[in-house]
Amino acid sequence: MAESIIKSRQAQKEVNGNLTEVICTDFSNYIFVVLTQYGKIGTLISVTPDSRSNDISTPTFSTKVLLGKDEPLTHVCAKNLATFVSQEAGNRPVLLGLALKDSSIDTIKEIKEIVKGCKVW
Amino acid sequence: MAESIIKSRQAQKEVNGNLTEVICTDFSNYIFVVLTQYGKIGTLISVTPDSRSNDISTPTFSTKVLLGKDEPLTHVCAKNLATFVSQEAGNRPVLLGLALKDSSIDTIKEIKEIVKGCKVW
Repeated sequence: MAESIIKSRQAQKEVNGNLTEVICTDFSNYIFVVLTQYGKIGTLISVTPDSRSNDISTPTFSTKVLLGKDEPLTHVCAKNLATFVSQEAGNRPVLLGLALKDSSIDTIKEIKEIVKGCKVW
Repeated sequence: MAESIIKSRQAQKEVNGNLTEVICTDFSNYIFVVLTQYGKIGTLISVTPDSRSNDISTPTFSTKVLLGKDEPLTHVCAKNLATFVSQEAGNRPVLLGLALKDSSIDTIKEIKEIVKGCKVW
């Protein structure tokens, strides 16, 4: 019965003037990552590595908006933010909640650093 | 800057022989509740109260499977498990992750008690 409880880590930091909250939770089939500057769960996107077992090139990822506005930029941001998580976690899919006030490259970069500090995988 | 971090509570308990883990997180637009006996995030369902502002009868709820198998029983369980959460939280929608080994009435009842102990709303 001594199974471990599901691991979850949280952090908050100001990024480009916006309070940014990060929650990472390690479910067995998904890494669940919420990145929010509104307190909302935001747009929910699944980021899934395409399985190409005999291919040694860089893996590609499929993104799908499950909840919220389906905009091209959302897919770009989601891939940018979730790819390294998936790769570090042994190519597990990532379920990403995204509610950002700005999606500039600098912001995305800073947020990735916060996520690295919340490593649960 | 002294905004509070997103509230989250976790519990685990054996229910009918199965280790059951519960995570409740209070996002501003959704209460996120995961009920899992597999460590998975499981089937992801949005449970949304129908807005009928001039109606004093019991509110009804719409359920939608966002991720995973869309089965009739899933909708029934989701409504049963999430309705009281939504009502207690002032009719906020609930995002529910469900991965149960059994969906008997007794199990559902016991799980609801665990959820009550993880009240974040």
